[in-house]
Amino acid sequence: MRIASFVHQNQASYGLVQGETVFPVSTAFMDKYPTLRAALEADVLGELADGRDRKALHLSDIHLLPPIPAPSKILCVGLNYKKPYPVAGVAVQADGIVIFGRHDDTLVGHNAPLEMPMGDAAKTYDFEGEIVAVIGRPCRHVEAADAMAHVAGYACMNEGSVRGWQKHSIHAGKNFLASGAWGPWLTTSDEAGPPEEMRLVTRVNGTVMQDTMGAKMIHDLPKLISYLSHMTRLNPGDVIATGSPDGTGGSCTPPAFLLPDDVVEVEVSTIGTLRNRVSKPYS
Amino acid sequence: MRIASFVHQNQASYGLVQGETVFPVSTAFMDKYPTLRAALEADVLGELADGRDRKALHLSDIHLLPPIPAPSKILCVGLNYKKPYPVAGVAVQADGIVIFGRHDDTLVGHNAPLEMPMGDAAKTYDFEGEIVAVIGRPCRHVEAADAMAHVAGYACMNEGSVRGWQKHSIHAGKNFLASGAWGPWLTTSDEAGPPEEMRLVTRVNGTVMQDTMGAKMIHDLPKLISYLSHMTRLNPGDVIATGSPDGTGGSCTPPAFLLPDDVVEVEVSTIGTLRNRVSKPYS
Repeated sequence: MRIASFVHQNQASYGLVQGETVFPVSTAFMDKYPTLRAALEADVLGELADGRDRKALHLSDIHLLPPIPAPSKILCVGLNYKKPYPVAGVAVQADGIVIFGRHDDTLVGHNAPLEMPMGDAAKTYDFEGEIVAVIGRPCRHVEAADAMAHVAGYACMNEGSVRGWQKHSIHAGKNFLASGAWGPWLTTSDEAGPPEEMRLVTRVNGTVMQDTMGAKMIHDLPKLISYLSHMTRLNPGDVIATGSPDGTGGSCTPPAFLLPDDVVEVEVSTIGTLRNRVSKPYS
Repeated sequence: MRIASFVHQNQASYGLVQGETVFPVSTAFMDKYPTLRAALEADVLGELADGRDRKALHLSDIHLLPPIPAPSKILCVGLNYKKPYPVAGVAVQADGIVIFGRHDDTLVGHNAPLEMPMGDAAKTYDFEGEIVAVIGRPCRHVEAADAMAHVAGYACMNEGSVRGWQKHSIHAGKNFLASGAWGPWLTTSDEAGPPEEMRLVTRVNGTVMQDTMGAKMIHDLPKLISYLSHMTRLNPGDVIATGSPDGTGGSCTPPAFLLPDDVVEVEVSTIGTLRNRVSKPYS
């Protein structure tokens, strides 16, 4: 199943996506579970297919939100990919898991504009294509072998970053308002398959910048979930961004940072393509 | 004014604190502004004093919550104090502002138990006494000279940290479930006075571990708010933890990390004392 959160006629809703068609959940279902997060909390995704008493919509007629607009936690993993091809003399990255957080207002949905930062921050605004997992059933102190049962599904993320501010602290560079995006929808685990088999491709204005397989993650998803669950409680709807491979704008020579009107696409083979345009600069 | 959020007879509420007495806001007020955050968003703190149709309570009869139980952002500043006394050869800390975030479930209210981490994390569980500011009016791209008008008030924080995991990444060490606390209430700016004039004292089992003045911050609050507002939008109820001075358990020789049943008190002269006991270990 592909499940999208969206706004239609000024009203937030969610529903199944099939091809170009969106089937909003029924009003009765919405009354009980007003958001996709609430449906995950109640563990009723299996009943979603029944709620089709409302008019089907075309994808182009709705404004997509992030699949979970307000998760309790957005946890991101840094430095989690081996170089896509062996590079002589380049050391493998740190053994340990590196995490940071993002506030929910740093991320918009599919097709919504990315906000070009103001001032100096505009000079080092960069993209990062990522595979993200969404938690279904809560977990705390779970072992890696049991972790995948807690995943509801997957989505694409552009984990947009301001490299200049990232030098102050990782949190600063990663938390500019509306600097990233995720979506376009949540694809459930049964349909998305395991992250190792996902191909992750990022394009800027049509040019491929990142192209790798989920199998190249240094720390795989079960290990990440287990690690995080020893620190905190993972709740339904929580987002785990699994890290970005080589090829970001900042890693190019010379650097290729984002400019106003640039279009960033993050495609994950079994999910779809997340597409966002960078806003025009403030005048 | 001192305004506390609390649970009484299983119901969340908030109200004015005067001495040992709590005056819950009226039911009509609660209907319009169900939380202190909602009252801040509506900018109606000035009307709080009128809402006294409900029975006054004694502080000992309520269970205090964090003043804002679910803020949109908890932003923390690292390394923000000069050493309390000049120490020869010790360099002043980094010029730049270092920030990180905490999830709201990492912090409990006054008198609630701090959760002793499990496993290896239990060996390096530490306290950090801090002065925290709470945002009243929203701000974005504000200059330091205008920043203080956006502060609603102040509270104490024990910004509990797991030093071993902090070496993996700052976010990991700072986000253990229920590892810190803040409160006991929000003291409004007019009553609390400026942070420079606040004395901050942290005691563990009655022994003074940290003792400094807010004036010793390297980056003062107006500068911090301005910095953060260039990154994000600060919303009513958002929390800014201004950093901890020297004297944490990890900085002692030998280290004096927290143990089960330890009592941590963070006192800020114009606010009050936040007190929490570390839980017993899991059996």
